[in-house]
Amino acid sequence: MALLLKEIRETPLLWLLVLVPVVLVAQVAAPDAHTLLFVLSVLAIVPLAALLSRATESVAARTGDMIGGLLNATLGNLTELIIALAALHAGQYVLVKASIAGAIVTNILFMLGVSLLIGGLKHRVQEFNRNTARLQASLLFVATIAVLVPSVLADADTVKANPAFTAALSLGISVLLIAIYGMGLLFSLKTHREFFAGAEHAGHDEVVWPLRLALATLAGVTVLVALTSEIFVESVQQAATSLGLGPAFVGFIIVALVGASAEMVSAFSAARKNRLDLSVGIALGSAAQIALFVAPVLVLLSHAVGPSPMDLQFWPGAVAMMLIATMITALVTNAGRSAWFVGALITAVYVIFAMTLYLLPPRV
Amino acid sequence: MALLLKEIRETPLLWLLVLVPVVLVAQVAAPDAHTLLFVLSVLAIVPLAALLSRATESVAARTGDMIGGLLNATLGNLTELIIALAALHAGQYVLVKASIAGAIVTNILFMLGVSLLIGGLKHRVQEFNRNTARLQASLLFVATIAVLVPSVLADADTVKANPAFTAALSLGISVLLIAIYGMGLLFSLKTHREFFAGAEHAGHDEVVWPLRLALATLAGVTVLVALTSEIFVESVQQAATSLGLGPAFVGFIIVALVGASAEMVSAFSAARKNRLDLSVGIALGSAAQIALFVAPVLVLLSHAVGPSPMDLQFWPGAVAMMLIATMITALVTNAGRSAWFVGALITAVYVIFAMTLYLLPPRV
Amino acid sequence: MALLLKEIRETPLLWLLVLVPVVLVAQVAAPDAHTLLFVLSVLAIVPLAALLSRATESVAARTGDMIGGLLNATLGNLTELIIALAALHAGQYVLVKASIAGAIVTNILFMLGVSLLIGGLKHRVQEFNRNTARLQASLLFVATIAVLVPSVLADADTVKANPAFTAALSLGISVLLIAIYGMGLLFSLKTHREFFAGAEHAGHDEVVWPLRLALATLAGVTVLVALTSEIFVESVQQAATSLGLGPAFVGFIIVALVGASAEMVSAFSAARKNRLDLSVGIALGSAAQIALFVAPVLVLLSHAVGPSPMDLQFWPGAVAMMLIATMITALVTNAGRSAWFVGALITAVYVIFAMTLYLLPPRV
Repeated sequence: MALLLKEIRETPLLWLLVLVPVVLVAQVAAPDAHTLLFVLSVLAIVPLAALLSRATESVAARTGDMIGGLLNATLGNLTELIIALAALHAGQYVLVKASIAGAIVTNILFMLGVSLLIGGLKHRVQEFNRNTARLQASLLFVATIAVLVPSVLADADTVKANPAFTAALSLGISVLLIAIYGMGLLFSLKTHREFFAGAEHAGHDEVVWPLRLALATLAGVTVLVALTSEIFVESVQQAATSLGLGPAFVGFIIVALVGASAEMVSAFSAARKNRLDLSVGIALGSAAQIALFVAPVLVLLSHAVGPSPMDLQFWPGAVAMMLIATMITALVTNAGRSAWFVGALITAVYVIFAMTLYLLPPRV
Repeated sequence: MALLLKEIRETPLLWLLVLVPVVLVAQVAAPDAHTLLFVLSVLAIVPLAALLSRATESVAARTGDMIGGLLNATLGNLTELIIALAALHAGQYVLVKASIAGAIVTNILFMLGVSLLIGGLKHRVQEFNRNTARLQASLLFVATIAVLVPSVLADADTVKANPAFTAALSLGISVLLIAIYGMGLLFSLKTHREFFAGAEHAGHDEVVWPLRLALATLAGVTVLVALTSEIFVESVQQAATSLGLGPAFVGFIIVALVGASAEMVSAFSAARKNRLDLSVGIALGSAAQIALFVAPVLVLLSHAVGPSPMDLQFWPGAVAMMLIATMITALVTNAGRSAWFVGALITAVYVIFAMTLYLLPPRV
Repeated sequence: MALLLKEIRETPLLWLLVLVPVVLVAQVAAPDAHTLLFVLSVLAIVPLAALLSRATESVAARTGDMIGGLLNATLGNLTELIIALAALHAGQYVLVKASIAGAIVTNILFMLGVSLLIGGLKHRVQEFNRNTARLQASLLFVATIAVLVPSVLADADTVKANPAFTAALSLGISVLLIAIYGMGLLFSLKTHREFFAGAEHAGHDEVVWPLRLALATLAGVTVLVALTSEIFVESVQQAATSLGLGPAFVGFIIVALVGASAEMVSAFSAARKNRLDLSVGIALGSAAQIALFVAPVLVLLSHAVGPSPMDLQFWPGAVAMMLIATMITALVTNAGRSAWFVGALITAVYVIFAMTLYLLPPRV
């Protein structure tokens, strides 16, 4: 516990934790101050996400390579999962899907792009393990195809007239994606692990927490993220309207940046330290995890938690952005090395997306 | 002849030949038993296709590298060509096009994917000649563009209002595709043949038939395939309906799997023997041949054989599947090596396609 | 001046300069002879474009590497810019956009394809600097995304109902593209210049003109190109109609081939001399310049010069052609070497585009 407090004292980002009780009180005191609640909940989730990922890593480090790898691979995006679950529970499927697609695109383009840019500004040319990057790129490619194919093969009228078709297909594809994700773990953690060495262990120069503390933090913080996420989901749309932001911009950009803030801090810092393997691993690994694990798990959970089953039919614009992001991943990882301009180009694509979504007039 | 009988005795697959007379008799005896005729004709085509490809290879082996290469390159997909011709003759252009697109997608994704999976499960990492794979991938890419461009540049209304435009364009593109295919043969068999060595000759550990036997088999089996294909084409749609399968699933998946069954046996067995060059060559070569030779030849022949000229306008979903398959080819062949997970991923994409087509409600 | 006259005497292409006064006189004498004016102006622009690019190169060679590189990078497509400005001034935005997209596609597919074909027919296998080609391919990819994204994210109805959205987005993207282009120059000419060595200097075996002559030619010829372009723009549509050519074919193919004629001569001659670095640099560099500099500059200038602001919304078919051309660039440059068949394939894609546009019935 003293360890936890020491870490909080030494990490300025974690001082934002003080906002967690503030937002919980504010919601009771002023349930209609949507913009205030939105801003407070965003700022409160950021340090909670950092704690969550810190606790997950510590549990992973204490439980050995295989189980640790599995834990990282399943709980690594716990924050995104909890936020999406809160939105799922509230029946806000458009927000859920936007946040999934936004998280994939943000992780690939913004997190990877800025990492390469920051790293490249400090180091002339940086190299990274092509095998890891290629594996993630392939996983992302298959996931993109999985959400692309139904909307290409079935025209819009067919889909609308046959909700049973969409539901059955989404279930089937979700199961398939989870199976692929599992096989990918088997491949990279077990049968061909020597090809992917280096990426996982590189980042641990922080003190590893004792297992008991890590588990307790994991449990406690999960509850706090859940409570804060609920406030966030309830306030986000009305706050966005009063801030003049469209729902597309909020779902794709703001929610995604909030959810991924903790990993971004790690990825950027690793890039500065010339550990590009780690940055690329965090960015692409996180995107692949959301696409092949979080999204299909949400579909399956929607049958239990949501008011009605959620499908995997995305807005065509979201599919296009995911496809572009995946193609860029394939092109970049092919080279296996990077300079600042590569990062600048990838970030520029993200800026194009964000700018378009920001200017996009709301659909009436 | 004794050689042929010996080969039939020793190859269990060829025992299915007994169904050839059965299906011919059944058609006369019970012309309305569509489902029975469909199942029988499918099972009868499989061994005939195997004999055809065996005879073609033997003729090729007896006629020297250059002419042999040409023969393999033109008659290698004789089964697909005959089935398509039967459908063309019956005016079933939707089935013809579905079987062309389905054969390309099945060869690339299913044949290549399962080959890499089977080979990878036995051998840790497998290498293959990148030059051959890249040549085929490029040919496939150009062919996909050729069928994609007209439907992108001309909107649906323009096409419908101007059948002359579509017909002229399809003729022009068909001639161009055959010319490209011919140049590709010139390139790989003549001007730069040393870059593509290895792939063609690797598979011939079977006894090469005498030329006379091979030619006689080629002629005789072609007639039998033609007869059986006619029964298949006549029965397939009604059989599909009574089996609860949509026309898209039948055209893209079932016809394609039947037509390619013989090559699949060769490709899978080569992969198991760690001769990945041969597997990749069969899968991609066959797909390229269908795209750049069989399909345009069918367009040209439709002017003579069909009730009306056939065009190269494909269903957008078919074009999308071909494009995805081609992109996957480019990504995979770029690496030049493979492990089991690569095969699993490619097969997974095929499963996504097949699942979607299976669930797709029939268009009313 | 004597140097200039000597050069004109020795270069048969420049004898066409005699047509410049002819076309200027013809326009006054027979302002309604559209087909004649069209043919004359096309033939007059070709030698002027050659002179312009010769003068730009000489100024660049005289002003040192850095400023020279910048000059080449901004004035290298002066002809295309002037023609487009003439069309912009006349309010012919459809022609402007077609000529931009057509120039990109023509430079990538026709100029690069024929260069590789010509070079490959003379030299067995040719190598080129992958870094330069990859940088240009990346720039082109980002530019294509920039024109693709708005039309994918905003559906057609939204765009039509919100001209303010399209105008704001086009402005923003134009500024971003110019910034990216500037950063690309910084990267290739300054911070990482040693990776891109060789391409710029290889071609200068011609006599470098004195600075004064070069500047005078630059100024004088710019005026002549402007005058001729105006005649060209005024006559092109009616001439096309009477020649039986659709506006799409004229905009994408004819204008693009005319504008790029001078660079083509250089690129083809370099390929024959086995200086593929130079050919690839001219073709892709010119395409990137049009996409990331000429096009956004035209958008910005349209606010001053044109009757109304021009946006960056392209016809979907144009975007598709640009996307295909960019993907081909990525695939080709990845290899870093080439043989004649690669050139033949790329040229074949251009032929497919040209054939489709030629046959395309005019939209009523």
